[in-house]
Amino acid sequence: MTKKLVNHVKKTFGVTFNDESVLVEAFTHSSYANDHREQNLNNLERLEFLGDAVLELTVSDFLYHKYPDQPEGQLTRKRASIVRAESLAELAKESQLHEYLRLGKGEEQMNGRNRPSLLCDVFEAFIGAIFVDQGMDTVLNVLKQILFPKIESGAFSHGMDHKTALQELLQQNGVVTIQYKVVDKRGPDHQREFVVDVFVEGDSFGRGIGRSKKAAEQLAAKHALEILEKSVRN
Amino acid sequence: MTKKLVNHVKKTFGVTFNDESVLVEAFTHSSYANDHREQNLNNLERLEFLGDAVLELTVSDFLYHKYPDQPEGQLTRKRASIVRAESLAELAKESQLHEYLRLGKGEEQMNGRNRPSLLCDVFEAFIGAIFVDQGMDTVLNVLKQILFPKIESGAFSHGMDHKTALQELLQQNGVVTIQYKVVDKRGPDHQREFVVDVFVEGDSFGRGIGRSKKAAEQLAAKHALEILEKSVRN
Repeated sequence: MTKKLVNHVKKTFGVTFNDESVLVEAFTHSSYANDHREQNLNNLERLEFLGDAVLELTVSDFLYHKYPDQPEGQLTRKRASIVRAESLAELAKESQLHEYLRLGKGEEQMNGRNRPSLLCDVFEAFIGAIFVDQGMDTVLNVLKQILFPKIESGAFSHGMDHKTALQELLQQNGVVTIQYKVVDKRGPDHQREFVVDVFVEGDSFGRGIGRSKKAAEQLAAKHALEILEKSVRN
Repeated sequence: MTKKLVNHVKKTFGVTFNDESVLVEAFTHSSYANDHREQNLNNLERLEFLGDAVLELTVSDFLYHKYPDQPEGQLTRKRASIVRAESLAELAKESQLHEYLRLGKGEEQMNGRNRPSLLCDVFEAFIGAIFVDQGMDTVLNVLKQILFPKIESGAFSHGMDHKTALQELLQQNGVVTIQYKVVDKRGPDHQREFVVDVFVEGDSFGRGIGRSKKAAEQLAAKHALEILEKSVRN
């Protein structure tokens, strides 16, 4: 398994590990170490501890320079949508990292190999292993291949609520006025429906209908995002 | 103020900023920027966002290599005790950073200059500024002067509860058996007192008396820590 993993990492990321045991450690889940207690294996958790901090900094640094005019609050929300478990689990799968994971029997049977929280742990441990064995420059090289282009294309905005995502998208290049207005209330009291339009610089961009003002606003933002995404594609 | 700040940082940390405006930004609180809106100043929050992540990684990396045998849980608890607001606020004060902070009138009157959360923000922003202007090596040089020696001397263990601190101290060089035993219960039901002894590798190291088992355990650990610290000093 070591050889296959080493080759996969070399082929996929162009990284050749100096100490292959660090790489193997990043792919050894605690359930596997427990099943093979006699081998006294290190599991991936210490590397995950480190990799989590490496990702936090590399993503923060990328966002800091990429969006020089955005206030801290927006950077923090963006970072959260990128480093959350679901996003990192996706990266792990896209790079086929899950195929090389060493899992205990129980975890394997419970489909641990596809559980987002577990895949996220492996991804963080893998980044931690690169950092320990190769240093920050190699980490950045890998992230330039698999993570930073996704940030630039807005791939993580689905991690935010629609209103935040719309604001992020529209305010990338400066402040834009976004307003939500209730344009209609209908139905009897116990079945009230709110109709909300979202206005961008005064123009209506999308409409949402919901049982509460909040729900209608979210739907309006969702529709505006869909319209904007279509117009970008065409 | 810029000149004094620049000189202080040069004298105290041996760091000469290439772009002094980054340094000034790290010492500009939002309340000051608001009071001087006409100057259109950047406040420290973006640098704080970055510095927070820089500290998270530098401390994680230090702990990872310093304690190669400690599991992730212990590293995480240690890191939390180091990067919490009270600890970083102390570092800011020890380096007289608070004297150079630009605060709004209201914050100044409310003694913001001595508020731990605010001092922590300045410290993080300062580290962020060094990272942006100088890079990681200079950050590490500064932390080697003011932070890492404190970690090594156990200065942050008061951030943990006493039981955790005792465990950290005793298990630095491997696993040690620590047991808490109720050796006496006394008083009537409504005024029950528990007497707990803490045993290290079978020997009693300290005693605690409290209204609950938990409180008595904490006091027993506290006394054991005091005894151990005395024996280290002598």
